[in-house]
Amino acid sequence: MTALDLKINSERLRADFDEIAEIGATISGGVRRLALSPEDLQARTWFADKVETAGLLVHDDDAGNLSAVLPCGNADARTLLLGSHLDTVPNAGKFDGTVGLLAALECLRVIKEAGLHLPVHLEAIDFTDEEGAWKGLFGSQAIAGRLSPNFIQELGEESGAFRAALFRAGIRPSEVIYARRDPNTLAGYLELHIEQGPRLDRLGIQIGVVEGIIGRTTFHVTFYGQSSHSGTTPFDMRRDALHGAALFITRAHDFVRDRYPQGVFNCGNMQVFPGAFNVIPSKVFLKMEVRHVDENTLHDMEREIVALAQSCADEHALSLTAVPVIHMPAVPMDRRVVETIEGVCQQFGLTHMRLFSYAGHDAQILSSITPSSMIFIPSVGGISHNPREYSHWYDVENGANVLLHTALRWALNGT
Amino acid sequence: MTALDLKINSERLRADFDEIAEIGATISGGVRRLALSPEDLQARTWFADKVETAGLLVHDDDAGNLSAVLPCGNADARTLLLGSHLDTVPNAGKFDGTVGLLAALECLRVIKEAGLHLPVHLEAIDFTDEEGAWKGLFGSQAIAGRLSPNFIQELGEESGAFRAALFRAGIRPSEVIYARRDPNTLAGYLELHIEQGPRLDRLGIQIGVVEGIIGRTTFHVTFYGQSSHSGTTPFDMRRDALHGAALFITRAHDFVRDRYPQGVFNCGNMQVFPGAFNVIPSKVFLKMEVRHVDENTLHDMEREIVALAQSCADEHALSLTAVPVIHMPAVPMDRRVVETIEGVCQQFGLTHMRLFSYAGHDAQILSSITPSSMIFIPSVGGISHNPREYSHWYDVENGANVLLHTALRWALNGT
Repeated sequence: MTALDLKINSERLRADFDEIAEIGATISGGVRRLALSPEDLQARTWFADKVETAGLLVHDDDAGNLSAVLPCGNADARTLLLGSHLDTVPNAGKFDGTVGLLAALECLRVIKEAGLHLPVHLEAIDFTDEEGAWKGLFGSQAIAGRLSPNFIQELGEESGAFRAALFRAGIRPSEVIYARRDPNTLAGYLELHIEQGPRLDRLGIQIGVVEGIIGRTTFHVTFYGQSSHSGTTPFDMRRDALHGAALFITRAHDFVRDRYPQGVFNCGNMQVFPGAFNVIPSKVFLKMEVRHVDENTLHDMEREIVALAQSCADEHALSLTAVPVIHMPAVPMDRRVVETIEGVCQQFGLTHMRLFSYAGHDAQILSSITPSSMIFIPSVGGISHNPREYSHWYDVENGANVLLHTALRWALNGT
Repeated sequence: MTALDLKINSERLRADFDEIAEIGATISGGVRRLALSPEDLQARTWFADKVETAGLLVHDDDAGNLSAVLPCGNADARTLLLGSHLDTVPNAGKFDGTVGLLAALECLRVIKEAGLHLPVHLEAIDFTDEEGAWKGLFGSQAIAGRLSPNFIQELGEESGAFRAALFRAGIRPSEVIYARRDPNTLAGYLELHIEQGPRLDRLGIQIGVVEGIIGRTTFHVTFYGQSSHSGTTPFDMRRDALHGAALFITRAHDFVRDRYPQGVFNCGNMQVFPGAFNVIPSKVFLKMEVRHVDENTLHDMEREIVALAQSCADEHALSLTAVPVIHMPAVPMDRRVVETIEGVCQQFGLTHMRLFSYAGHDAQILSSITPSSMIFIPSVGGISHNPREYSHWYDVENGANVLLHTALRWALNGT
């Protein structure tokens, strides 16, 4: 048997998938495994057990990242990471994260069983809190040395609960920084994931080759006006914070569609004060985000969106604050890794296309320290973060085989 | 001394005003006397004490309305009501309601002291919960027989607390209906009030003669969309409930300004679900109200605003519910009472204008059972429902004298 003939064991992967779907299963047919919750810790225990059963090494680091390791015999060799995450959003489906991590484990098992000797260590890694129950991309940021030493304090009023959750998982906040890895010890990072959008499904294409991950900046925006009696205050004396905020949301959507067709705008929450039928709102607080595939364009967009909010505030005699909360940079994936994935797709006769990921992923962080890319498989109807999230099993199987052979090619030739 | 020479005792009225401002005084210089609260009950006790001290009769009814009565000696005579309210909104000023009730009491004292014999009983009445801490215009609705026997149950989840508050004030919910008065026993209703808007203050006019009270309908409006990932959901697949709701608010303001210059629109509250930065909102709940001075036009406005909300929902593939909550009809004031107030202003050389009240008042309810109107005095800057609410004392004094002489003319000639 040569490396070219290897295939993942689809039945074994499917059995794993069905088993872990029971951990945190919800009545609506989805799962709920918030990072560091009892369900997440139960899933990690399950994973560690699978790793040992497979004769692989269990490794965990100071940020709680949990790995299966297949050592290559040369202690000085670099490590090729294959990963994803077992944690989920609150009302999640069964595929997001889970598929990628289980496929990574399956790759290690197949390669170990085949007795292949590679020039790199292989590691299938579950990153802590990818989804952001506490702090999104926490585990990968720790590995990349991107976490501030004050990462807990920066969470504000949730700091105490986050600290307690870390301790329950055996993670000492003061030691998280030791999870950082020297980039020279890494050979690359590969991740299989569902697309979470409808592009592949609509076009009937089997594999998406991720050429970049969208950048994202979130803001807390507050419009300040003046409360007054809705019946007796003439139009020209109103300082209606909600009128200004509604105008902003409407215009921001139009603006982004017209000017930034590759950009995204979302206003996800709004709170209105004081909140009575007959009182003109004095304060409106909103949570908004902007995304773009190009980092410089993202910064332009941020500036223009905040200026738009200011102009809407001005029209209604309001004052405005716009405070950035999170910034994840837009990053390109490694060109050579992208071409390697494409070569594997061609080898297996799988239709494929390059695309940008419009969701954030750990690859966004790891790409700053090691050559990285992602393999997407179709999401039926583009539905994600929802119990109805679904991918056909043949697509999971294709994706896992592309992951396996990309890892083999990169391990043998790419590094 | 003839009736024409009578004047209210400005110093005594001012002393009362300063005393009651201490009950429920807030650190910001305003007052807080929510209906049936300890502060409201304390204010009523204070009022009853003033009534007895003046040698007038204290009367209270089954809805908690509290009155000073100056009987005319003829038990079969009708009663001319002069009134307002001692309860306030949460962050109130000192003038709203209080000025009108204290002036009414002062009128009775002056007439009693003058030994005038009128053909009607006079009654200075404090209406329960004008402001709507529980149920706006509660006391006047009880007198007009407009309360549903299920008024408590209709409050939904606040029913229990309202029942307890009524009991604490000595009001038995099952007996509130007995507060209803036979319209044949009433001679009219007069109320002095601050304008709560800027028209008189801007024009430098001393007295506003209220020719009508604006109608008001409130709605609970809910837009239903679908939550999905903000990054990965293409524009054409989004069902963004907040985008639709923001569009509606923006368009509704423009629509009302263009089409209903005498109308008012306000959206006072909004709640967004599920509320995360990166989730497209699936549900937006809002509290809105429409007002118009003409009842038929108000109904047209309601229909057109709901249709506008539906069209905004349609544009974003949302569904919509719009449920009316409160309807207070637009009502004209009694023409003869209005003319009587104008005659008194002319007699005293006070500048005056007719205007509509854009806020609701108990006169809105009482006008359905007895000839009614209101006397407005200027609110500095139009500010109301705010600790900065202010009226010059000379305007209060003018207003109280107009109330006194309107009551005299109406009692002697009008009825």
